[in-house]
Amino acid sequence: MSTAVQRDRSAQVRESVEQEISTLFARHSATARAYGSDFLHLWSLAADHMQGGKLVRPLLLLKAHDALTRGSEEGLDKGIGHGADGHLRDEALTIAAGVELLHYSFLLHDDVIDGDVVRRGRANLIGELATTSADHAGDDGAEHWAHTGAILMGDLLLSATHQLFARLDVPQRIRTRLLDLLEHTIVETTAGEYADVGLSHGVITPDLSTVLTMTTRKTATYTFELPLRAAAILAGGSQELEGALSVAGSHLGLAYQLQDDLLSTFGNSEVHGKDPYSDLREGKQTAIVCFARMTSAWPSLEPNFGDPHLSTETAEQMRALLIDCGAQRFVEGLIQEQLTAFYEVLAGGSTGEAIPGPLRTVLLDVATRLEDRQS
Amino acid sequence: MSTAVQRDRSAQVRESVEQEISTLFARHSATARAYGSDFLHLWSLAADHMQGGKLVRPLLLLKAHDALTRGSEEGLDKGIGHGADGHLRDEALTIAAGVELLHYSFLLHDDVIDGDVVRRGRANLIGELATTSADHAGDDGAEHWAHTGAILMGDLLLSATHQLFARLDVPQRIRTRLLDLLEHTIVETTAGEYADVGLSHGVITPDLSTVLTMTTRKTATYTFELPLRAAAILAGGSQELEGALSVAGSHLGLAYQLQDDLLSTFGNSEVHGKDPYSDLREGKQTAIVCFARMTSAWPSLEPNFGDPHLSTETAEQMRALLIDCGAQRFVEGLIQEQLTAFYEVLAGGSTGEAIPGPLRTVLLDVATRLEDRQS
Repeated sequence: MSTAVQRDRSAQVRESVEQEISTLFARHSATARAYGSDFLHLWSLAADHMQGGKLVRPLLLLKAHDALTRGSEEGLDKGIGHGADGHLRDEALTIAAGVELLHYSFLLHDDVIDGDVVRRGRANLIGELATTSADHAGDDGAEHWAHTGAILMGDLLLSATHQLFARLDVPQRIRTRLLDLLEHTIVETTAGEYADVGLSHGVITPDLSTVLTMTTRKTATYTFELPLRAAAILAGGSQELEGALSVAGSHLGLAYQLQDDLLSTFGNSEVHGKDPYSDLREGKQTAIVCFARMTSAWPSLEPNFGDPHLSTETAEQMRALLIDCGAQRFVEGLIQEQLTAFYEVLAGGSTGEAIPGPLRTVLLDVATRLEDRQS
Repeated sequence: MSTAVQRDRSAQVRESVEQEISTLFARHSATARAYGSDFLHLWSLAADHMQGGKLVRPLLLLKAHDALTRGSEEGLDKGIGHGADGHLRDEALTIAAGVELLHYSFLLHDDVIDGDVVRRGRANLIGELATTSADHAGDDGAEHWAHTGAILMGDLLLSATHQLFARLDVPQRIRTRLLDLLEHTIVETTAGEYADVGLSHGVITPDLSTVLTMTTRKTATYTFELPLRAAAILAGGSQELEGALSVAGSHLGLAYQLQDDLLSTFGNSEVHGKDPYSDLREGKQTAIVCFARMTSAWPSLEPNFGDPHLSTETAEQMRALLIDCGAQRFVEGLIQEQLTAFYEVLAGGSTGEAIPGPLRTVLLDVATRLEDRQS
């Protein structure tokens, strides 16, 4: 395919995901209407704040699924495609939307836990709900009402995700594999989130391997493993292919999150749209901080690390110290290690399971864009 | 059956539910072990704090299911029982356990939202987790870590509930009816909870009908409708029977929650085990308060209503005022109204759908115990 055709196809896939999500919200909002204007408003806020995301996960799922089923059309012998299960393209779209709902459900509960009110450069659902209800409820009441809304909407979207998986009209063994994957994903992600908060409060000791494991569980699993494995299952791929994609996804996911940590601390907040320095203010135990702790820069960093009232000036000084002590470079090295391990899986080296050519192309493209990303 | 045989049977049913829940937790804990001691500890805390509950919901489900399938053995012609679907007794036990997991998932998120640290007369999961981690995390950190644990465990149990429904090995139309019921239940309950918090902050105007609707949604639906309808579906009952049970369950559930409100405010806290006066301290908009607001007692009640630091002395004065102004008596009247409506459904009056005899006996027993309850 030419680059222009690829771009067109990519835009089509994105549009189909947006349409699917929009249809889901329309259905839920129609039900919500019977429960009064506040509940309906909560649904429309959620629909609104879900928009504008990069749709990393559903697009990865659909591109991987298309690549696997296209592979079989081209006669590759991977037990994939036109078998008894058909291509299940519609079902892949449903699950892609489900993966995005799950992502937003995690984000909502994460924002409650972290006390965040900003995302993608503007007020998040909590921030907006608190602002609009402050007239009636006062500031404290409005914040509480907003947190309540975010917890409950997270529950509703977590439930909606399960409903999509549970009702999928596919042979039972496919549905069971997908339900196993969903269960595994949720356990990994919650365990990672729990460790993240435990690390930030000193309940868990922050050594590098603990931090990297936490990072993989909290983000890599649901961002990369989940879409890739779901694509393989729906394309009728073998358990072995699913296993290879799980390993590849895990390396790619850790690289992605480490990149995210670098961007949060060293990137341009006008481009990535997050609250700048929030990681430093929250005392988030990232690989950056793990490295810095072992250097002579730490005594200068420690007093302000985790200070919720950190000034921009102090934060900028901390950033300079983190660069000087080599923490930034160290994490860049970790990313390269993960990408190297990822390329090995792609070459069939570490798992012994060859990933079909068209899917390899998709994954290489993801890795390339990852290395270039600014937001 | 003699009363002694009934008691034996009831104890057996309770034991089977406890066993089912215990098996589920053992399976989840075995998985959790791979994620480190803190995550495993969170699971064991949840298993521990789920114990000692009254198991109102799973027992109602199983007794109703047994009554419906026993009914068919006795030759009642309700389209129930030995049909193509069999009795599905094992599946009813699975769903009964699922209903209890859902209940505890709601309780966990409810406790986070309300800031409660006590339940059934002792520290709840949040209270215990905060106390045991205060050494490492400090008081604020420990509270945050405990809330995080409760949010995430709520998510895990909500997910586990869906997994039980989704994997049920029953004909697809039965599974779909159960999934519809689960979806409806979760929407009702979250809408009720959202309204409850909105009412307490003055975002929603607290008139009596709004408060009663909120109460029905927040508690009655998942406590009575859900178990009764699930029992009917699993016993192969008709949509009409399910509809009649939905109406009956809704009246019974509202009566139950109004009784709960009375006990919280006027009951003996040593018997019911809840934080006494927490409803008054939280400014909870109950039917009791709705009535009091329309009386001359309100100006004396209002200044202290919703005061988080309410003293026991003031709370006792408020209680006396609520009795004197007739609020207690008014709500007792509301309970009788709901029970009358419930008896009408039982007699086939308001829905036109006869509920089979053995199930009528089970429901009458529930209503009788409801009128006598002290906790």
